[in-house]
Formats: sequence, structure tokens, C-alpha cells
Amino acid sequence: MEQRVLSILVDNTSGVLSRVAGLFSRRAYNIDSLTVGVTADPKYSRMTVVCSGDELILQQITNQLAKLVDVRDIKVLTPGNCVTRELILVKVLCDEERRANVISVANIFRAKIIDVAKESMIIELTGEINKIEAFLELLEGYEIAELARTGITGLSRGSHDVRYL
Amino acid sequence: MEQRVLSILVDNTSGVLSRVAGLFSRRAYNIDSLTVGVTADPKYSRMTVVCSGDELILQQITNQLAKLVDVRDIKVLTPGNCVTRELILVKVLCDEERRANVISVANIFRAKIIDVAKESMIIELTGEINKIEAFLELLEGYEIAELARTGITGLSRGSHDVRYL
Repeated sequence: MEQRVLSILVDNTSGVLSRVAGLFSRRAYNIDSLTVGVTADPKYSRMTVVCSGDELILQQITNQLAKLVDVRDIKVLTPGNCVTRELILVKVLCDEERRANVISVANIFRAKIIDVAKESMIIELTGEINKIEAFLELLEGYEIAELARTGITGLSRGSHDVRYL
Repeated sequence: MEQRVLSILVDNTSGVLSRVAGLFSRRAYNIDSLTVGVTADPKYSRMTVVCSGDELILQQITNQLAKLVDVRDIKVLTPGNCVTRELILVKVLCDEERRANVISVANIFRAKIIDVAKESMIIELTGEINKIEAFLELLEGYEIAELARTGITGLSRGSHDVRYL
């Protein structure tokens, strides 16, 4: 099982998310994460899809995606040629006593504390997937009340393959 | 036209994204942004959907979503009771001469420069939607080669309505 990160430029239409998600679910391809947002040109959106499977499946996915009318361009982001990031918000339950401990874990990762209530805190962290996973592991001793993750987004490094979008 | 942010707890199944996206596209409801990620309990994922429409439409969307078998809980995140964040990566074209200018724009917003090449830089910024939009406006004089946005994620403040996921 390999993991692949695809950066897909699509038309910004109301049905495009449904068509891409439908393609994966009909063929029982696994989506590990999907993010989508409009580009600098509002005619287009950029989707970042992380999917896993063997080489054959991953090739099939790419071929099928390329056939969708809304899909303009597909780039495979490989670890060497790209930067990837994810954003998470974690609500940790902690009373006054444990608050200092949670804050020091947050500081190690340069995470931001964006809400403090009597019995909980919300921490914001952005980083590569390894950093996010390490942070969540360190929090395992605490009670995580809620967790919101955006999924992974990414861009290829440098400007040799730029599409101006 | 109002905008509404829904935080939806769903079963972590392969078809759930397709079903939620399909619900919106079949009824021509507008999705402004959607993010999805697994929660602390891998049985569940949390989706954050930003949608717009009049009060009636927004009520219909919420009702329809609640009927889906994968949907466990729906919370409306209102500006007063929640924190929302988005992550963007921007590849700006700039030669050596203009690099310092782009860096100073990034510094104003406490954005991070995560890749520098001969003719381009990648900037990472996390923040509320207003901050993101203000940053992109300031960059309008520059050539944006590529832009990747995760879409908005969010959590309700405090711990009075916690679902432990």
C-alpha cells in the first residue's frame, strides 16, 4: 500500500466535489484526506487528495480523474518536490491544575492556544503530517474533547511547472 | 443570503463524503467550503461545511443532513460561540529584487516562508477568514503562481456541549 498526494486543478462548479468524491466511492478507492479551495482565479479550484492503494490502483485513480470534464490538471506531489501542510484544532479538557502542562506541550510544538475556558482549551497547530501526529501522540494522556482536521494541502516546490492558478 | 458554518460528526466510512457532497449538488445547494478529517476516535470524522442561502434553504440543508445515516451530530457554529481557521499556501513569483517586499508582507501577517526558489516563494498562512482575505488582497500587486486553500475548519468554544470526539 502506497500513499499518493494529488494536486488537482478543477473547474469551480457546484457539482465537482460530488463527482470527484463519487468516483472514489463508486470504485471503493480509499480517500485518506481531501481539501478543496478556490484558486487566485475564481473560475478554478484546487483539490488536494491523499489516497492509498497499490501502484495499479493509484494509476487507475489518476486516469479516471483525468477523464472528468471538470478536471484541468493533475500533479502528483512527491515528498521531494513538494510542501504539504495540515491544520488541526484540538479541544483538550483540563482544569486549572493541568492547564500549565497542556500549555507546555503546545509551546514545544509552537502551537497556538486560541480559546481558554474553565475546563477546556482549544489549541491550533499547523504542520507536516509527522508533526501533527507527534503532537496528537503527546496529548494522548489528556482528554481530547473535540478534534477538527482540515486534511492535507500542498504545493510543488519551485516554479518550473507553474500553471498560474 | 446568509452564510452558515456546520460542524458535522459523521461515521468514518468511505462513502460518507460522496453522500454529503451529493446531497448538496443534487439539490443545487451551494457549498462555500468543506473540510473533513478523522476525530480522536477513528470511528468518526468531523466535517466542517460552510454553506450559503436564505434562512429556509439553510434549515432544509440541516434537516436533510440530519437524515443521512452516517451523520451522528450537527452543530451550527455561530461567530460568537466558535473559533474558525483556514490554512493557505501561496506560491508567489518574485525575483531577488522583489523578494524583500514579499517577505515584509508575510511578516506583517506572521506568515511563514516555507520554500524559496530562484523565482518564487511559498508562503504558509493560518488564520480567520478575514485575515486570509486581507493577506491575499495585499498580494494582489504580485504574481500568484499557485494557491492551495484547505477550506474552513472550526470548533465551538468552551466545553458545555462536548461530545468527546
